Amino acid sequence: MRPPPRKKEFPLAKVYTLIEPGPVLLLTTARGGRGNIMTLAWHTMIEFEPPLVGCVVSDRNYSFGTLRATGECVLNIPAAGLAKKAVACGNTTGERVDKFKKFGLTPVAASRVNAPMVGECWANLECRVFDDALVEKYGFFILEVVRAWTDPKVKDPRTFHHRGKDLFYVSGKTLRLTNKMK
Amino acid sequence: MRPPPRKKEFPLAKVYTLIEPGPVLLLTTARGGRGNIMTLAWHTMIEFEPPLVGCVVSDRNYSFGTLRATGECVLNIPAAGLAKKAVACGNTTGERVDKFKKFGLTPVAASRVNAPMVGECWANLECRVFDDALVEKYGFFILEVVRAWTDPKVKDPRTFHHRGKDLFYVSGKTLRLTNKMK
Repeated sequence: MRPPPRKKEFPLAKVYTLIEPGPVLLLTTARGGRGNIMTLAWHTMIEFEPPLVGCVVSDRNYSFGTLRATGECVLNIPAAGLAKKAVACGNTTGERVDKFKKFGLTPVAASRVNAPMVGECWANLECRVFDDALVEKYGFFILEVVRAWTDPKVKDPRTFHHRGKDLFYVSGKTLRLTNKMK
Repeated sequence: MRPPPRKKEFPLAKVYTLIEPGPVLLLTTARGGRGNIMTLAWHTMIEFEPPLVGCVVSDRNYSFGTLRATGECVLNIPAAGLAKKAVACGNTTGERVDKFKKFGLTPVAASRVNAPMVGECWANLECRVFDDALVEKYGFFILEVVRAWTDPKVKDPRTFHHRGKDLFYVSGKTLRLTNKMK
């Protein structure tokens, strides 16, 4: 399989570096050939390798049923330039709207899952549900990242992060501090 | 109980606004009158109210045993000015070192749990273990925040976030985007 346009494979052992700073994510799913996008801020790394990511998808989200039924999704990481569209995705339900069309986002075929990737995002993590033990209680899915892609042109990605309601911030100045931990 | 020095009670319903942007946290515990601090970047909100926070504390961490035994901790949020000390805490084990002393941090009594708060942090969340179903498998604790404090003088906190190894960034420019979601 050729890499998706403008993307390069990203090592699974380094996926945690993308997720642990807590960026807003776009979670994509597909069912019956129809793709959908939801906006997500509640997620955490669970394990380095294979990379496991825990995330909360409430059963009030249209994506919940699709994720439950297909066991597959992509976690797409938008840079700050996509913030408006990403928030608009969160304000709309996929039950009635094709969000790719409505917001001018490009569905790109993934390699290992049927869910589409968002072409405009600088990183895309193809995921399969790994553990659903806490799905009933909290909507908490543990996903395994099975393949990861990044845009090699994006060297210092500005992610954006939610602080409740209308408030977000963009990642800022880099700090380098000697750290024995991963 | 009087509020801790320089702190004001923070409403539990808004605790998610502190956690969801993904800041590096200091998790404090106490056992046998001895406080300890660990540095933590793997956490997520699980529920708004009561506020539930999920976090990964590996059993390789000295704090794991204390958290397991006492069921209590404080999640302290350092601003970027504390980044060096916070990372140094992560590079040291509490098994042999009193990190409060070593790094010149002030233990302050919490109101509902025995674990000490870090006085220098601009926010402190007193927590009890709420669900340990995934502790054995992943070190994943679900904590209930039972009381929260913030420094009312800190209006626009600069948190810091981990990007793997020696790389961190400081939260930057604020964005306001109309958001129907919480």
